[in-house]
Amino acid sequence: MAASPTPRPKRARSADATAAAAWPGAQALADWALRHWGPSARPEGPIAVACSGGADSTALLLAAHARWPDRMLALHVHHGLQAAADGFEAQVRGLCDRHGIALRVSRVDARAAAGQSPEDAARIARYAALADLARDAGAAWVLLAQHLDDQAETVLLALSRGAGLPGLAAMPEAFEREGVRFGRPWLGLRSQALRDFLHGVGETFIEDPSNADLRFTRNRIRRVLAPAWAEAFEGYREALSRTAAHAAQAQRLLDELAAMDLAHTGAPPSIAALQTLSRDRQSNALRRWLRGAHGVAPSAAQLHELLDQIDACRTRGHAIRLRVADGFLVRDGDRLAFTPSV
Amino acid sequence: MAASPTPRPKRARSADATAAAAWPGAQALADWALRHWGPSARPEGPIAVACSGGADSTALLLAAHARWPDRMLALHVHHGLQAAADGFEAQVRGLCDRHGIALRVSRVDARAAAGQSPEDAARIARYAALADLARDAGAAWVLLAQHLDDQAETVLLALSRGAGLPGLAAMPEAFEREGVRFGRPWLGLRSQALRDFLHGVGETFIEDPSNADLRFTRNRIRRVLAPAWAEAFEGYREALSRTAAHAAQAQRLLDELAAMDLAHTGAPPSIAALQTLSRDRQSNALRRWLRGAHGVAPSAAQLHELLDQIDACRTRGHAIRLRVADGFLVRDGDRLAFTPSV
Repeated sequence: MAASPTPRPKRARSADATAAAAWPGAQALADWALRHWGPSARPEGPIAVACSGGADSTALLLAAHARWPDRMLALHVHHGLQAAADGFEAQVRGLCDRHGIALRVSRVDARAAAGQSPEDAARIARYAALADLARDAGAAWVLLAQHLDDQAETVLLALSRGAGLPGLAAMPEAFEREGVRFGRPWLGLRSQALRDFLHGVGETFIEDPSNADLRFTRNRIRRVLAPAWAEAFEGYREALSRTAAHAAQAQRLLDELAAMDLAHTGAPPSIAALQTLSRDRQSNALRRWLRGAHGVAPSAAQLHELLDQIDACRTRGHAIRLRVADGFLVRDGDRLAFTPSV
Repeated sequence: MAASPTPRPKRARSADATAAAAWPGAQALADWALRHWGPSARPEGPIAVACSGGADSTALLLAAHARWPDRMLALHVHHGLQAAADGFEAQVRGLCDRHGIALRVSRVDARAAAGQSPEDAARIARYAALADLARDAGAAWVLLAQHLDDQAETVLLALSRGAGLPGLAAMPEAFEREGVRFGRPWLGLRSQALRDFLHGVGETFIEDPSNADLRFTRNRIRRVLAPAWAEAFEGYREALSRTAAHAAQAQRLLDELAAMDLAHTGAPPSIAALQTLSRDRQSNALRRWLRGAHGVAPSAAQLHELLDQIDACRTRGHAIRLRVADGFLVRDGDRLAFTPSV
């Protein structure tokens, strides 16, 4: 990972903390809590917020602390490989000290595995570290500060790849990883609202190095594409986010349909049972089986070829053999089977 | 509709007709025909091409004529309300005369109904006129010249509205209307390839007035958004088109699932049967029932409220009454019913 600039604390201009309660982020936090925790229920133990020291997570920590002042726990992941990592930790310690918020810090040293981007490696290590910290502290939920601009950017990234529904669905507002639940209460809130809030309460933050050290693709989205969308359609963030929600709902339905169809075909699937389904449904069920049972994703061309071979497989002796990812799909008696390469 | 400039014929520079057979549009036409008509089958009677006199449909007419020289029929819709309409007809007549292609012309005078845009009114009238012309001539298929740039623009238009899958799916490469089948063989071909082809064969065309007289939204897409996409991701047209194909496949699956679920709930749906389905599946089935049986599309907020009311409807006396589009959804005994407003 490239060296990051030493973080420079910035101080927001005014200090009108009374505005804090009324701003849209407080309402979004309350609405999210109602949806996920119900009208009166709260999770057991502390409520954790992941805080990098950047603007977004600083705003979320302060807003969550205002709402649940005696339950707040800040979690910080120290990325040992980043030059500026010590500065971020110091920034978060200062913030938590000033506001009387408990803080737990974990050091990770994420190196990318083969075929993995440094960004992916850091993200995976960060979630694992946050889950460990939360579990140790007895916190059932970790809140994350991704906002509407991040969501729109994720949709644009998916579109730039010609993604299907799982990519278009972008980030969910709640998910589980390693037994810990993560929540994103601010996916509907524009980043400008967070900046305005921080200026209003006069809190300091530092520029997250991931903003300066963007990977090539994200950089093009932020520098070229997002400004054009903003010029053409002022409400583009909200529109892309609605499309993401439609895609997420559709994907849940396709997963339900695949589960029903795999209950019918068995897993590994019976070739004759597959043949009773429409081509689209075979495709949907096979994708889910291969992903769930073998962690592989066939290309559109491979799937197309596979469906042709399944359709042609009407005699006892008809063989199927097709490369998929790092293995082969073959016929094994009446069923399909996936064999990883040796 | 605004007055259009008088069309000025443009002559392409060189006249190398030998390039015609090898260009990508000829291959795309052959591939499309293979997919829809099979390796040897051809539709009965003439093969019709809708031709406005603009670049895209001029290129398609010539490419299709090169492939099926003795089967070709050009169809032209004369939009009586457009100032330049006579000029377009003259252009197409000249083209067909030079190449010995049969031509049929229909005059339409489309006025927008209440709540309808002039663009929508003209499009609906155009397809109806094309279907009439084709049926009269005994042509089973009408080929349309929309290309990859049009497809990408349609996806961007859908995204700007926060559309769900039906909008994201953009244009299909074949569909049926009023008993006539329409095909779009060039949805995978960039518009630049068509322009290059026309220059190569030295054929004239005129700028379609719909390009100069763009509605506001499409204009912003072409002027601001498409160039930014092209700068950020050179292959954005192909990527957006792949996403559209994923969305179209997913929508077909959701339609299959809705048909299965409505077979279970009945239509109008039984409230108790709906309650046995997941919330997402209720939503999917109700959307399809309302669209198919009553031609109405509930908003996301209305559907959300309806699902809450269905969930709460556990006693004999529990009423349901909810405004949807221009009517009401009510409980009628054990079932839902839709009653249009009086």
